[in-house]
Amino acid sequence: MKWVRFVAAGEVDPHFGSLDDSCSEICEIDGDFFGAHTPSGRTFPLSGVKLLAPFIAPTFYAAGANYPNHFRTAAEKAGKPLVFPAQIDIGYRAVNALVGPDDPIVVPQDSSGKLQFEGELVVVIGKRAKHLTEANALECVFGYTIGNDVSERSWQAADRTFWRAKNSDTFKPMGPWIETDVKLDELVTRVRLNGSEVSRFPTNSMIFGVAKTLATMTRYLTLVPGDIVWMGTDDPTLDMVPGDTVEVEITGLGVLRNPVIAG
Amino acid sequence: MKWVRFVAAGEVDPHFGSLDDSCSEICEIDGDFFGAHTPSGRTFPLSGVKLLAPFIAPTFYAAGANYPNHFRTAAEKAGKPLVFPAQIDIGYRAVNALVGPDDPIVVPQDSSGKLQFEGELVVVIGKRAKHLTEANALECVFGYTIGNDVSERSWQAADRTFWRAKNSDTFKPMGPWIETDVKLDELVTRVRLNGSEVSRFPTNSMIFGVAKTLATMTRYLTLVPGDIVWMGTDDPTLDMVPGDTVEVEITGLGVLRNPVIAG
Repeated sequence: MKWVRFVAAGEVDPHFGSLDDSCSEICEIDGDFFGAHTPSGRTFPLSGVKLLAPFIAPTFYAAGANYPNHFRTAAEKAGKPLVFPAQIDIGYRAVNALVGPDDPIVVPQDSSGKLQFEGELVVVIGKRAKHLTEANALECVFGYTIGNDVSERSWQAADRTFWRAKNSDTFKPMGPWIETDVKLDELVTRVRLNGSEVSRFPTNSMIFGVAKTLATMTRYLTLVPGDIVWMGTDDPTLDMVPGDTVEVEITGLGVLRNPVIAG
Repeated sequence: MKWVRFVAAGEVDPHFGSLDDSCSEICEIDGDFFGAHTPSGRTFPLSGVKLLAPFIAPTFYAAGANYPNHFRTAAEKAGKPLVFPAQIDIGYRAVNALVGPDDPIVVPQDSSGKLQFEGELVVVIGKRAKHLTEANALECVFGYTIGNDVSERSWQAADRTFWRAKNSDTFKPMGPWIETDVKLDELVTRVRLNGSEVSRFPTNSMIFGVAKTLATMTRYLTLVPGDIVWMGTDDPTLDMVPGDTVEVEITGLGVLRNPVIAG
């Protein structure tokens, strides 16, 4: 099942809806897909609405570096031996930075221009959960979508935190929809810059998989419906400049496409 | 004006309300204090309700180290010269960790026990804001409350991020109310452990003040109503163990009191 958040043509308020398997028509719902909802009776062609980031998360978690090649590249750059981390250390991103499909990624005026994409699987939590085990962790997952963890590398290197490097407005495109029927091992992530494929990797080839990550997090944290966990990306990435278009595609989850513009 | 969120005796759902100047009676409102609201007609004695964290923030920002003595202590411990940072680097906390006045701070079972308090001024945003200047930044502030940035020092030192060190459930007590009429220069922060004062400092003696911080943040980030910015603490702090009670008091903002219990 595919779920979207959208604004219909000529309207202002966002609504939730389901998207049919052929990705052509949205059936609007009253309520939201995490809780009680009923069909509103209105339907819209997908081509006639503006899709938004599927929802605004209560807490926005990010796994950070979580793929083998990402560590290999970092180790090579630093001239250090390759060592994978012993445990996942979750980070945070900010909801102000969320935008939807086709929304522009705006390069801040004082950016060095060293802006890069990171195509990521996004886990969407559907149930309140604490003390999950690896065996039952996936039961709290509502579905999956795509995220682009846009990063300004100069600020990432210079600042004590990632606040502006990763959380400036528009730096977190998410969408186009949430898919609830997903087989993680069958997913492939493809990232394209201006139509040319930059990277392709098995989405589930993470160092810390989804179940392991959620089990670790919920030893200490309570997850709630709508929380999102971005699972990291694999290398390589490239610089983006105004005029570019970046696309992240994951099998069955659609294509998250965003243009880059100057601020 | 003082605003609270509370659960009335025998009820389950939280409500918002205003608290009179003598801090004895709550006038419930329909709606919330950030948006349109009207009196519901119900009033409650403060002593008869359970106060909650005043609200759940869309984004939970934290200034981190922002007082001179905090840097002096860190420099002495590290045997390094005292250098203040050139700019504020905002961090993030997680709303799962928010609890209200009198709620217990729960020490996780696998904690080293090295749990410490940090009494902080919390800025509550009332208006959507971007590109603020230092001159107009305070216009977006709705009011102020108190936070206790509970930190597990072993995890803070060992982990790549502060995820469990600062964001485990119950690690972010906030309240007891939001005060909208505040003169920052008149505030004094007092922190007590089991009734004994541990620290006392002028709340506004920050390296980066509220206006400067908000102006810096909004060069890159859009603030929205309900966002909170925790402004850091001054040293010293102490270890807390189950059975302890920690209190953070700021002039006019009340006392945020929380017991510590074993998980």
